[in-house]
Amino acid sequence: MGADTGIVRQSVERADPALIARLGAAGVATVHEAQGRRGLMAARMRPIQQDLGIAGSALTISAPPGDNWMIHVAIEQLREGDIMVLAPTAPCDMGYFGDLLATSAMARGCRALVIDAGVRDTRDLRAMGFGVWSSAVSAQGTVKETVGSVNVPVVCAGALVNPGDVIVADDDGVCVVARTDAAAVAEAARVRLEAEEAKRRRLASGELGLDIYDMRGRLAERGLRYE
Amino acid sequence: MGADTGIVRQSVERADPALIARLGAAGVATVHEAQGRRGLMAARMRPIQQDLGIAGSALTISAPPGDNWMIHVAIEQLREGDIMVLAPTAPCDMGYFGDLLATSAMARGCRALVIDAGVRDTRDLRAMGFGVWSSAVSAQGTVKETVGSVNVPVVCAGALVNPGDVIVADDDGVCVVARTDAAAVAEAARVRLEAEEAKRRRLASGELGLDIYDMRGRLAERGLRYE
Amino acid sequence: MGADTGIVRQSVERADPALIARLGAAGVATVHEAQGRRGLMAARMRPIQQDLGIAGSALTISAPPGDNWMIHVAIEQLREGDIMVLAPTAPCDMGYFGDLLATSAMARGCRALVIDAGVRDTRDLRAMGFGVWSSAVSAQGTVKETVGSVNVPVVCAGALVNPGDVIVADDDGVCVVARTDAAAVAEAARVRLEAEEAKRRRLASGELGLDIYDMRGRLAERGLRYE
Amino acid sequence: MGADTGIVRQSVERADPALIARLGAAGVATVHEAQGRRGLMAARMRPIQQDLGIAGSALTISAPPGDNWMIHVAIEQLREGDIMVLAPTAPCDMGYFGDLLATSAMARGCRALVIDAGVRDTRDLRAMGFGVWSSAVSAQGTVKETVGSVNVPVVCAGALVNPGDVIVADDDGVCVVARTDAAAVAEAARVRLEAEEAKRRRLASGELGLDIYDMRGRLAERGLRYE
Amino acid sequence: MGADTGIVRQSVERADPALIARLGAAGVATVHEAQGRRGLMAARMRPIQQDLGIAGSALTISAPPGDNWMIHVAIEQLREGDIMVLAPTAPCDMGYFGDLLATSAMARGCRALVIDAGVRDTRDLRAMGFGVWSSAVSAQGTVKETVGSVNVPVVCAGALVNPGDVIVADDDGVCVVARTDAAAVAEAARVRLEAEEAKRRRLASGELGLDIYDMRGRLAERGLRYE
Amino acid sequence: MGADTGIVRQSVERADPALIARLGAAGVATVHEAQGRRGLMAARMRPIQQDLGIAGSALTISAPPGDNWMIHVAIEQLREGDIMVLAPTAPCDMGYFGDLLATSAMARGCRALVIDAGVRDTRDLRAMGFGVWSSAVSAQGTVKETVGSVNVPVVCAGALVNPGDVIVADDDGVCVVARTDAAAVAEAARVRLEAEEAKRRRLASGELGLDIYDMRGRLAERGLRYE
Repeated sequence: MGADTGIVRQSVERADPALIARLGAAGVATVHEAQGRRGLMAARMRPIQQDLGIAGSALTISAPPGDNWMIHVAIEQLREGDIMVLAPTAPCDMGYFGDLLATSAMARGCRALVIDAGVRDTRDLRAMGFGVWSSAVSAQGTVKETVGSVNVPVVCAGALVNPGDVIVADDDGVCVVARTDAAAVAEAARVRLEAEEAKRRRLASGELGLDIYDMRGRLAERGLRYE
Repeated sequence: MGADTGIVRQSVERADPALIARLGAAGVATVHEAQGRRGLMAARMRPIQQDLGIAGSALTISAPPGDNWMIHVAIEQLREGDIMVLAPTAPCDMGYFGDLLATSAMARGCRALVIDAGVRDTRDLRAMGFGVWSSAVSAQGTVKETVGSVNVPVVCAGALVNPGDVIVADDDGVCVVARTDAAAVAEAARVRLEAEEAKRRRLASGELGLDIYDMRGRLAERGLRYE
Repeated sequence: MGADTGIVRQSVERADPALIARLGAAGVATVHEAQGRRGLMAARMRPIQQDLGIAGSALTISAPPGDNWMIHVAIEQLREGDIMVLAPTAPCDMGYFGDLLATSAMARGCRALVIDAGVRDTRDLRAMGFGVWSSAVSAQGTVKETVGSVNVPVVCAGALVNPGDVIVADDDGVCVVARTDAAAVAEAARVRLEAEEAKRRRLASGELGLDIYDMRGRLAERGLRYE
Repeated sequence: MGADTGIVRQSVERADPALIARLGAAGVATVHEAQGRRGLMAARMRPIQQDLGIAGSALTISAPPGDNWMIHVAIEQLREGDIMVLAPTAPCDMGYFGDLLATSAMARGCRALVIDAGVRDTRDLRAMGFGVWSSAVSAQGTVKETVGSVNVPVVCAGALVNPGDVIVADDDGVCVVARTDAAAVAEAARVRLEAEEAKRRRLASGELGLDIYDMRGRLAERGLRYE
Repeated sequence: MGADTGIVRQSVERADPALIARLGAAGVATVHEAQGRRGLMAARMRPIQQDLGIAGSALTISAPPGDNWMIHVAIEQLREGDIMVLAPTAPCDMGYFGDLLATSAMARGCRALVIDAGVRDTRDLRAMGFGVWSSAVSAQGTVKETVGSVNVPVVCAGALVNPGDVIVADDDGVCVVARTDAAAVAEAARVRLEAEEAKRRRLASGELGLDIYDMRGRLAERGLRYE
Repeated sequence: MGADTGIVRQSVERADPALIARLGAAGVATVHEAQGRRGLMAARMRPIQQDLGIAGSALTISAPPGDNWMIHVAIEQLREGDIMVLAPTAPCDMGYFGDLLATSAMARGCRALVIDAGVRDTRDLRAMGFGVWSSAVSAQGTVKETVGSVNVPVVCAGALVNPGDVIVADDDGVCVVARTDAAAVAEAARVRLEAEEAKRRRLASGELGLDIYDMRGRLAERGLRYE
């Protein structure tokens, strides 16, 4: 027991950056559908900025409630294109992260933070172009007393995240794609987007989904009636 | 029983577009006051965009939790200037609506969606200029398995909405005006706005509400004392 | 008993405006740290605008739930640079405050409102440049039936506020500094900001917090191990 | 407008007491199913007592937030077997109702209160055998300043209630049956309970729902596979 | 600054035990009314047991989120009849307190705990007869790393508590009475209870509040009309 | 992708019943501590009964929101001593489970349900002695339209659960122990309980935790001072 507390795993396999970029371009809603509606974090995870879509490789952090010590440890492990994913081991809305840590993380090539807790210095973070998805905004500071772990599997806002999984985040929330599924999901997303593009044109011209998807018969069968 | 499940009412009387426009120009707070503080939806109904004020005729949708099939049915019933109002039959924060459905709705003249549940593709929806007031943002997709109803009375976020009622929505929330009350409420709103304009000038010049509304005597009578 | 209901204290000592300005420039997160992590209001207090940072002298209002009468009384007591702080005596998300009251308050030199309840006319308030931090947005109007108090100690969103205390508010939330602590906190904030500036440069250059703060030994001692 | 504020409707048609008793005996879950899954109040409506099931005729109260004056007015309108249903016109968790009002209501034959707000004296209320379903427990007192209405249609915890509708409440929550549907729903509930009784015996003997309801084929068709 | 962190005040003046007992007998709702509707904690403070009413002298604890070290410090300061009141310095639902600490506290004459956070071992606590009012139940353990303070003023669930204030708690929640107000509030509660007793008899006999309180004229004046 | 939707894993390794019983006897708080404070479900998981402590082998169910079809599938897979653990794939408070399903599950030897959603027929479930920990109580019925999976890994209320893991549940909540950790955790719990028993006797006699745990020096070092 306790095997996953106090550990820093230094070697993490990451997905191909080109695949990550394709997933980011597809966006959260499409990626979530493309992988069978799995991996979505809870709706309490909200961006502190608007109109930013991003994807990266998960560097995971398991941290005690109200203790941000592990973020310093995690920053040393960052590689270009990583996104930090912090899951507190008990619910907490304190401000684990602000502009100084963001400065340090950006110097290491990190592009964003996903945290099921609070952040602060949000105005500075937006100005720096550092993306944040969090469950709270709070100036309340944290301590540095208890160790957690870096790059172990975590459950963040209801979603299981393994180090090296692909994180996709935009205005709709945050979705996790298993590293080994990344290629297949990216391809499924591409197919989906192409199909959507064709449908979009038909819908924009006034054609109805009822007809495009041939729903009328099944609706009648399920009991729908017009008055 | 069951009389209002599985029904699409195709004939809905709508209010005069000029009246609807006047109510939209007055805004939610004024309209709510003008009709005796009734018809306001719960404060969980928040816009996904900022600084948009709108009014339209309610096309109502009663949908099962996590099932957006009825939106396709509803779109066929849309008329120019309608606003879709979706009430799930049990609390749900899933994403019923995204950019494809918005494309279809806009092609039919619909201007906005009011939904006591979630939406997705919010960045696209803002870019398209399609207004949304919702109780959640979520990429979580829905199914198409169970019928609901279109253009039946619904309770949406605590407010009763009949098809053809006037929906007024802005940054303050969403208010419902019964179709048959629309003319009287628009007139009461006009009177109220004129009175407010006069008061605004006096207040801006430094005059006090205590004096304008003659409150000092009643405050003393209710026990207020100055130290 | 009842000693603090129905009272308007007209004489309030305020902090030096220069001190208040220094605290505002330091911002909520820094001020909160500088005074020993005390005085922060709960995270439910959110700004209706983005990227506004402000500080002012607290004019406190204790008001019954759903009754905004005391705001009219409070406005007469405002001095240039004051911020109104309203705490309802029971939880309430109704809209106590809108553009007319803001017009009146601004005519008296008030710069912002902090309210553990709702506001309305939020679009107008943003356009007027009147800052608001609130726990809700709601068009729901209030009554004027029961007296409360002005300039008595209140607990607002979990923080004790005495009249004349300094309120600091920005995108991270709201923090209260006792008037008699203002000079010491401003100085501590200055020291802190200078130290942060030096650290920011080192972190931006890629140096690690682990090294700057000399954390490696203590982390090992607490059981952290690298794999 | 304002037509339903400040009104007391004295004449209310009630359902047959025998029908009401049958609905109460069926319980909330069964009645809710029997009428097509409509009329259920939100899950925030919780009983202050355990293991009490009840039904009665709704006497509705529309009351301002934090103002319980209308309960006194309502009590005069009570008839034997009535249940009071109070919906505040804005969200409120204050304590509208305690042991004195319960004493008065019981003297008039009232059996229970359903309130989308708070109650107090809960220990006394349990000892008196007066049933309460509420969204809060709070000692916070209310005022008597603003009139509301009695026996008008209200939306209580998301459900539309007309005066004289049948209220069914137990440990699972609160359900509303339209007065004119009461006979049909009671019959549907009876049929449902009989069918359930037969199924209960088969399930208790170890037979599976998969077989009783013949689900295996449809599950396979929808893609279920065993490993 | 920082003046109230890391301090244990050992000398606390307590109210007369007879007064405390009278306030406990009156109960939360009555005491809250008797002191002008002040001092009530937020409705999230719920008892883990049913039908227990109690009063005691507040021993206050200001503790960091997720850190229960100060409870050990506080227990040494307990006197017969004290109630511990713990306010975390940031919101937290972790389990600060369980059966071992209760054993220790009871050995010192402590009767109950009021905590705006979580507790655990709730079944044992009930069996021991140790009263608890908390905002959460959680098995999640806390650390012992950071000092807080004992017997300093705290804001607990929205109410200001000074050491030595009287805490009254029952099924309706928790109310605080300032030590110096205890005698006056106890007397006002007695008067109130006597008046209520007389009213209870009249109401039980079927007399109406409308008549006892002579409300009919004022209701008509405020616009109530009967149909 | 989609690999874990629509699957029923029929072969699940279970822990030794004697180990499971020892973990149940230790209780949630002790087990949670004994395994390094991991595996606790979120505090929203509350029992519908009081004073019941239990442990069993997890049979996991991943179900769509508002769809309880998989429970019928799961019941066939139950073995004596199993506890069903249902995680919806999106947040949902509908009533997935009632007395008929409980009858069927009990016939198969199942002792309890842990569900991050709603249940109904709660009074009957208590009377039957079937234990339930849920995040909601609701009479709202679900559909049987979409398949999920049985005996796949799920995240339930923030905790990862693999089929065959040991579930411990009591009044404090729900904790998960990995099957392969069960023996070690049971032993650690035993050691912990013995140590607690010794401490309990010392604390009950009035000895202080400050002395038993030798805290005074470290408290002083961290800055605690007595006044």
